[in-house]
Amino acid sequence: MIDNIRSDVNKYLERIPIPDSPKYLYDPIRYSLRSGGKRFRPVLTHLSGRANNIDSDVLMTLSLAVELLHNFTLVHDDIMDNDTIRHGKKTIHEEWDSSTAILAGDGIYTIAQIILSKISNNTSIVSKYFNQTTLEICEGQALDKEFENDKTITEKMYFDMIDKKTGSLLGASSALPIVYNNGDNELINIYEQFGRHLGRGFQIHDDLLEITADSKVMGKSLGSDIFQGKQTIMVILARENYPDEWAELLNNSDSNELFGAISSFFEEKNIIQETRSISESYFSSSLNYLRQLNKINTDELVQLVHLIKERTY
Amino acid sequence: MIDNIRSDVNKYLERIPIPDSPKYLYDPIRYSLRSGGKRFRPVLTHLSGRANNIDSDVLMTLSLAVELLHNFTLVHDDIMDNDTIRHGKKTIHEEWDSSTAILAGDGIYTIAQIILSKISNNTSIVSKYFNQTTLEICEGQALDKEFENDKTITEKMYFDMIDKKTGSLLGASSALPIVYNNGDNELINIYEQFGRHLGRGFQIHDDLLEITADSKVMGKSLGSDIFQGKQTIMVILARENYPDEWAELLNNSDSNELFGAISSFFEEKNIIQETRSISESYFSSSLNYLRQLNKINTDELVQLVHLIKERTY
Repeated sequence: MIDNIRSDVNKYLERIPIPDSPKYLYDPIRYSLRSGGKRFRPVLTHLSGRANNIDSDVLMTLSLAVELLHNFTLVHDDIMDNDTIRHGKKTIHEEWDSSTAILAGDGIYTIAQIILSKISNNTSIVSKYFNQTTLEICEGQALDKEFENDKTITEKMYFDMIDKKTGSLLGASSALPIVYNNGDNELINIYEQFGRHLGRGFQIHDDLLEITADSKVMGKSLGSDIFQGKQTIMVILARENYPDEWAELLNNSDSNELFGAISSFFEEKNIIQETRSISESYFSSSLNYLRQLNKINTDELVQLVHLIKERTY
Repeated sequence: MIDNIRSDVNKYLERIPIPDSPKYLYDPIRYSLRSGGKRFRPVLTHLSGRANNIDSDVLMTLSLAVELLHNFTLVHDDIMDNDTIRHGKKTIHEEWDSSTAILAGDGIYTIAQIILSKISNNTSIVSKYFNQTTLEICEGQALDKEFENDKTITEKMYFDMIDKKTGSLLGASSALPIVYNNGDNELINIYEQFGRHLGRGFQIHDDLLEITADSKVMGKSLGSDIFQGKQTIMVILARENYPDEWAELLNNSDSNELFGAISSFFEEKNIIQETRSISESYFSSSLNYLRQLNKINTDELVQLVHLIKERTY
């Protein structure tokens, strides 16, 4: 089922009419929309909508809007973070330049809004919810940039940052069909919290993969977040629990062996294991939210949680 | 009346609740919204709405959305064009850096959408129209970048570029109240064409001011468009009518005296006068669209055209 949704989403993404010119705008947009991705967010929207018997055309519209919003943030974040590879392909600002990538991101977000405006039911509420999510993602990216190289960042501040940067969109992907359906606030909140907790698990798992995964399979270089001074739960655990050893390691390793040294340090100090168990606790709490949904078949959503939890890239 | 609207718009812009943190996101947004500007677009929306007896709260909502959309495009365009001064103040990427400016622009556009979603009447049609305008502006900016330093650009291509980059938003500022009001397509089209022709006049006049205005009054350095290889009607007239002399002038003037040399060339060859008369012809044709509106009092809109036509900065 999840594979079917994913290939449907990819089919509809390819069908979005992207004009040929101006090439400066539309070539990189086309490139970005065909650059792959795991499509977890539109799958989540579909599954939460299916559990509530929502029209499949509406679900595809919401899903495309969510996926394009996600893509827009990736294109702009990659410029800000100087990331050169994404899904095994050059990022837009690397393949073209920053100006092209700024404009492509703007265009992708605008196309997301045009697609969303096809929804004729409850439009102002759906649009408000969608855009408040975007603003929260911008806040998360702002915190991510503010926190770079700041040694005073705590676990609590890190969670606030990933809740905004990652959790808000997973929360919205899950709750949007219920918002569309005029669900009551309590129900919207359960779906949103389910997605937000899934988002915490997802992001911490993602931070882990930066250290433990195979770089070829991940389609990007590993450890780059840490080299850029980004906060991850592992960095915070290392800094808080082993301040002197951690500082010494960062100061004394030469750059070629830094990744290996960090990775061994996390392993020896049991930080990998501890991080994995934090991530798993959020996957579990996301499932607890689903259990609050009586009379709704959440089997497919449960499967998605397991799929995300077990991903290796 | 126009002054009153302008100060009302400024008052409401200041009242948009911008949180204190994250400072990385909201400090530059606050800075941008308080950086001044002539507010022609929201004034246009107000006047076209007043001529059609549209509720003043709705007009303010549409006006703020339009002004924020305009601001968002300025913030991102200034990065792409390396412009360092706007309205006499440093641009965001100059005061902070490019990453900050990218995110601030994203935030401003998102806030525009959140404000727009307050409209509960006809929301999906208003939102679609608003976002199609944004996409057209992106296309215009793409052409502007594509055309840089391209000596084959014709007058027709230039008009296509400014129609998208400038005309589309003036057209939308004028037509949005009619779209909101469920006006028929013919009426929407008259208001849109009025704004688009006004936009042509406005942009050509703006290109002229780049050469003829006082840089202190303009709040930015003059001639920078030409130095960046941007297309203006004057550059195209010079290149098409005096190809050898124009090429020689660009090749032989040293950079300190280039602005003076270009300016004298435009004066001697009567290009300033010719450009002024092209600009005036578009102001006239914008007024012709207003004359098609029987039974509607367009006096205030006519005054706005004159105000724009006579501006010296």
